[in-house]
Amino acid sequence: MSGVPTLYSYWRSSASYRVRIALALKGVGYDLETVSLVDGAQREADYLAINPQGVLPAFRTDDGEILTQSLAIMEYLEEACPGTSRLLPGDPVGRARARAFAAVIACDTHPVQNLSVLNCIRADHGQDEEGVARWCRCFISRGLAALEPAAQASDGPFLFGDAPGLAECCLVPQVYNARRWGVDMSAFPALEALDQRCLAMDAFQAAAPETQPDAPEGGG
Amino acid sequence: MSGVPTLYSYWRSSASYRVRIALALKGVGYDLETVSLVDGAQREADYLAINPQGVLPAFRTDDGEILTQSLAIMEYLEEACPGTSRLLPGDPVGRARARAFAAVIACDTHPVQNLSVLNCIRADHGQDEEGVARWCRCFISRGLAALEPAAQASDGPFLFGDAPGLAECCLVPQVYNARRWGVDMSAFPALEALDQRCLAMDAFQAAAPETQPDAPEGGG
Repeated sequence: MSGVPTLYSYWRSSASYRVRIALALKGVGYDLETVSLVDGAQREADYLAINPQGVLPAFRTDDGEILTQSLAIMEYLEEACPGTSRLLPGDPVGRARARAFAAVIACDTHPVQNLSVLNCIRADHGQDEEGVARWCRCFISRGLAALEPAAQASDGPFLFGDAPGLAECCLVPQVYNARRWGVDMSAFPALEALDQRCLAMDAFQAAAPETQPDAPEGGG
Repeated sequence: MSGVPTLYSYWRSSASYRVRIALALKGVGYDLETVSLVDGAQREADYLAINPQGVLPAFRTDDGEILTQSLAIMEYLEEACPGTSRLLPGDPVGRARARAFAAVIACDTHPVQNLSVLNCIRADHGQDEEGVARWCRCFISRGLAALEPAAQASDGPFLFGDAPGLAECCLVPQVYNARRWGVDMSAFPALEALDQRCLAMDAFQAAAPETQPDAPEGGG
C-alpha cells in the first residue's frame, strides 16, 4: 500500500513544528491531522491507537508505518528521501556536531519546559504562574547560552552548511518558545540573526505555528 | 594526529553510561577521564575548555575532535566504526523505531530527572527531598510505561535484533536510575527482563557505574 504520508500535529507543539520544517525543507508533501493538546485529544482513544505514548508528533509513512519522536522522524526523512535537500552534513564529525546542537534543544532544553512538565510542576508541586514562567526562562536561557557560541563560530549563513538542516529545525521552534516565555533574545545575537534568516524562508513560513490550520485567528 | 579516543565520564552520569555501553558493544578502546559531577568539576575551567556546555559526556576522537551529547556520540560511533557490532537496524523504518525508543528516554524521561533539574526544583522551587523523589518517580514511570509495550511486542531477545543496540544503551542506565529512585520495576516486566539480559553481558558489566574507577567503594 502506498499513499500520501500523514503528520499528526498541533500548531504550537514544538516537536511537531520541527518535523513540519523538515518536511518542508525536504519538499515532502503530506496530509495534516491536527490533535489539540489543550483539549487533551492526545489522550483520547483515536490518537492513542496511532501513538500509545500520547505525545506529538506522529508520522504515517507512505507505506502506512507509524513513526514517533521528532528526532527519529527527521532522521527517517533524511534516510528515506536522500535525493532532496540534506538535513545533515556528509562527514561523521560534522553530522555529530549537527546532531549535538539538535540534542541540546531536544534533550536538554525543550523537555524540561514542555506542557506535561509544566502541568506537573503547577498541579503537583505547588508552583504558581510566576514560578512556572521563571522555570521556563531559566532552562530555555541555559540551553540557548550553550548554543550561542556554535552560532557565533559558524562561518556560513547557516550552522552546518549553506542551507538549514536538523539543527535549524530544532532551533527555530525553541526560539519561538523563548519569545513566548519572555526570554530576552538580545542576549543571543547570533542565534537571533540565524532565526531571522530561517524565518524569511518559505519552508519555515509554511511550517510556522501561526500558518497552521488549527491556529486560532491571529496566531494565538 | 591519531591516538586513542578519550571519554569524559562520571560513574553515575546516565548519559556517560550510555556511551560507555556503546563503546563496549563496538569494542572501541578508550582512555577514561573522570569528571566529578558531585564536586562540580564539570563547571571548572579544565572541563569547560573541553565542553563549554559543562555537561557529560564528551568524547575526543582518535583524530582529536571533541564531540558532545550522548546520542550524537553513539550515532558517530555507528558511522565511524561500521565494521563492528551494529547499534541500529539496517532499514530506515527499523532505525526510526530504535531511535524513537532511545528518544523516549533521552528526550522525554532522563532530562526531566537529571541532576541540574533536581538542583533547580530543590533550590529555586521549594521542593523537599520527598517532592524531588516523587517528581523523579513520576517522570521515570511515565517513560517506562511508554516503552513497556515495545518490549512486550519484541519477538527477539533484544528490542531491534539479535543483539543490543542504541535502544538498550539508553534503557539500561534509565532502569538503573529507576531503581535508585525507588520505582517499582515489577510494573514493567518486559523491560525488567530485557535489562537483566543486558546486565548479564560483558559489555554492560564493563560500562556499569559500580565497575568504574571513580565509583566509591561498594558502588555508592
